[in-house]
Amino acid sequence: MISVIIVGTGNVAQNLFHAFEKSPEVNMQLIIGRNQRHLSFAENKVAIHTDFNHIPIADVYILAVSDDAIALVANKFKNVKGLVVHTSGATSMNSLNPCNRVGVFYPLQTFTKGKTVSFQDIPICIEASDKNDLALLEKLGQTLSSTVSEISSNQRKTIHVAAVFVNNFTNYLYTIGAEICAENNVDFKLLHSLIKETAAKLDDLSPIQAQTGPAKRGDQKTLHNHLQVLKDKHQRELYTLLSNAIKEKHGEEL
Amino acid sequence: MISVIIVGTGNVAQNLFHAFEKSPEVNMQLIIGRNQRHLSFAENKVAIHTDFNHIPIADVYILAVSDDAIALVANKFKNVKGLVVHTSGATSMNSLNPCNRVGVFYPLQTFTKGKTVSFQDIPICIEASDKNDLALLEKLGQTLSSTVSEISSNQRKTIHVAAVFVNNFTNYLYTIGAEICAENNVDFKLLHSLIKETAAKLDDLSPIQAQTGPAKRGDQKTLHNHLQVLKDKHQRELYTLLSNAIKEKHGEEL
Repeated sequence: MISVIIVGTGNVAQNLFHAFEKSPEVNMQLIIGRNQRHLSFAENKVAIHTDFNHIPIADVYILAVSDDAIALVANKFKNVKGLVVHTSGATSMNSLNPCNRVGVFYPLQTFTKGKTVSFQDIPICIEASDKNDLALLEKLGQTLSSTVSEISSNQRKTIHVAAVFVNNFTNYLYTIGAEICAENNVDFKLLHSLIKETAAKLDDLSPIQAQTGPAKRGDQKTLHNHLQVLKDKHQRELYTLLSNAIKEKHGEEL
Repeated sequence: MISVIIVGTGNVAQNLFHAFEKSPEVNMQLIIGRNQRHLSFAENKVAIHTDFNHIPIADVYILAVSDDAIALVANKFKNVKGLVVHTSGATSMNSLNPCNRVGVFYPLQTFTKGKTVSFQDIPICIEASDKNDLALLEKLGQTLSSTVSEISSNQRKTIHVAAVFVNNFTNYLYTIGAEICAENNVDFKLLHSLIKETAAKLDDLSPIQAQTGPAKRGDQKTLHNHLQVLKDKHQRELYTLLSNAIKEKHGEEL
């Protein structure tokens, strides 16, 4: 049984709490947050706590707080004997340095307020300098997910950038798709099935194999027609930049 | 029972064939293609035909050929009494004008060679100038899909551009994600769950509501760090352009 204390009240903290709460191998001991009201998601389920000065003993302390707050919060845990980890993709393990034993427990997923996700398919990227700590994090990760990977701080930085491309930027392209539909009285929902299949294709093909479309085919006529449809300057810029990039990648002349 | 003749041997033709073949309400009568070898997917299942000069009677002729070939192939069908439709997102219904009765039967999905998809969730966008023809296409669409929408040629053009953003361009962002991972010895598969959840979020949220990430938060420190990680000039350009677009959209100062 691994005893866990979670610090934080955001989406990651809430999702981890709900997942650990169900795990028979984890003793979800306590959640600590500054704001009693924000802790309501855990009320009557587990002990909650707003006092950072009296921290009980636990095997693992998970600081699921915003990147900027990690170093500050870590300071409050410098005297604990347990393993202190953060959950950030963008933050080095060193930011926890005042603590005795440090590590990272980074669930590679996008968490949305009010939506509980299943951790089974979510990779947990772990890091620790001590072998026993790493083994502890691996065991803890395996209580939630079928994929627990040891990832260095540098690799994690890389993954985080790649995640921005495939999540944040992809979602921005969805936003433009929705705008184009709205401007022409077309229901954006018609594109949902296509969007899901675009993602699902990666089960069978690499993205470079899965590429289709006028830019890939070098179909100048369609590219020209599409630019006529787009009235917004930014949309046209982005259309041209991405089409040229695809043409270049797939060996068409610009 | 609606009798159907499919013309073409590509991904759309093959997927439509497999779907209609299973439908008890459709008599999948014949497939016509120029190349006998390319028709092998239908051999022993339905009549196949390479002769465009003797076309049997059917209710609907589906020209599932490349955009460039539509007008040319339509010419061969100018004497038939049945309804002639194409399956293209980017082509106006007018390109079928030599035919007596014309329409569009556009399944809004990305089709991959060798991968048979289920049509149930794929919207079929239909168009016809004659009311009875439209009703016939609606009935035909409903044998495959739960979503059959009447969409004008202009709206279809719009959808096709939006589809390029959410499919072609999104897949290109996946390609960059995969490259960044490969350059740093990280398994791109770790990002699959994130990619699928990014798409699945649209069931509950609009893309503008679903936006997350450093650009949305105006987190300059992370944006700066990410640009340090990216060694490729094109990747940095795209990162900056998309981050600025997100910042602007979400009201942050550039």
